[in-house]
Amino acid sequence: MVLNLYLNLFSSSCRSLYIFAKLHVISFEMIPVDLMKAEHHSKEFVQISPLKKVPVMKDEDFVLGESVAIMLYLCRRFKTPDHWYPDDAEGCALVDEYLAWQHLNMKKHCKKVLWMKVGAAGTQSPKPKNGLLTSSDRVLRVRHGKFLEDGPFLGSRDPAISADYNVFENRPWLREWQEKVESILGQELCDEVHGPILKLKEAPAISSEMLTKFDVMKSELLS
Amino acid sequence: MVLNLYLNLFSSSCRSLYIFAKLHVISFEMIPVDLMKAEHHSKEFVQISPLKKVPVMKDEDFVLGESVAIMLYLCRRFKTPDHWYPDDAEGCALVDEYLAWQHLNMKKHCKKVLWMKVGAAGTQSPKPKNGLLTSSDRVLRVRHGKFLEDGPFLGSRDPAISADYNVFENRPWLREWQEKVESILGQELCDEVHGPILKLKEAPAISSEMLTKFDVMKSELLS
Repeated sequence: MVLNLYLNLFSSSCRSLYIFAKLHVISFEMIPVDLMKAEHHSKEFVQISPLKKVPVMKDEDFVLGESVAIMLYLCRRFKTPDHWYPDDAEGCALVDEYLAWQHLNMKKHCKKVLWMKVGAAGTQSPKPKNGLLTSSDRVLRVRHGKFLEDGPFLGSRDPAISADYNVFENRPWLREWQEKVESILGQELCDEVHGPILKLKEAPAISSEMLTKFDVMKSELLS
Repeated sequence: MVLNLYLNLFSSSCRSLYIFAKLHVISFEMIPVDLMKAEHHSKEFVQISPLKKVPVMKDEDFVLGESVAIMLYLCRRFKTPDHWYPDDAEGCALVDEYLAWQHLNMKKHCKKVLWMKVGAAGTQSPKPKNGLLTSSDRVLRVRHGKFLEDGPFLGSRDPAISADYNVFENRPWLREWQEKVESILGQELCDEVHGPILKLKEAPAISSEMLTKFDVMKSELLS
């Protein structure tokens, strides 16, 4: 039976998983979940995953949410190369440390920058607030200084955020890191996975009914 | 050489680790870090851990931050019973799923409730904002419904928050869960680990200089 991945490539967590599965030629069926239509809050989706979030994995009867958990499951299930999640106690602890840290840092801040854009896609396009960009800058610097000080590849599962906010501006060290990651993944896979988010500006205007729904979700996210 | 744990028992992540180490009779030296004096931002501490956070573990030369990573490291290093982090792919994936989920849910919201109280300890004591309590309620319900639907012990590493906000009010299912956890841990260990936070109200007033420092940290946390 084929592995099902419920994804939306606007989400960096989904993109990480998509890249990871493609990179290791893991056979999967992608089931797109339209976040712009709030499909992750639909009755059908909530029956599969009560967390109302993408990504979700379904491996026969086994359903799993949370990209970090899915990534580790795929590592074990498909015996991917050891460098992803080393076998020795210290090596995997350092991966665990980054994976734990990024939730309330990289992920939280980058999600907010994306929401600033998505919430306004097709309507208006405000610049992210200064405080938010300062926080994003701080977490990017901590990531580079603490987690990537010995080389470019601890934490390379997170492709850089985009959505009209040029994360590379004034950060040559981040551009350099991205180029290293892209040279390993290959341009084709990078273009494929980032296609939807790079076209976000061209997305059709969101209905006012949907924007109201989004506001509820956004207030949950930003609370 | 003894294992060092840099802890402050106001932090639920530190309390989890303290309980876990005591429960499994892991020999460690606790090095208290006074958060109320912002010791986690001091030059000495930042040299050990640039993340400026407790808990931190030092096992000979190996330094590790993030409670989840430390907990998993201790599981492996001291070969704790299998139920904490099962050996089978699905069992440990479900633990990974909860551990990933709680960062942006349990931990994020409970931290905010605590900050509302700590920021005001010794000065005034505002009630946490309604929106914040609604979010806390939502995450507690998700935790109970999704993660604890089959029994009381996935996720039992998180002792309930307190600090003058009665988390058990109108939540008999949460009280029932806490009683099950306490019956396993033993009253003595529970009292010991929760002592400092239950005495938070008696803490001396914080200097205005320190409150200014706190405001900077709080704005980072709540951003």
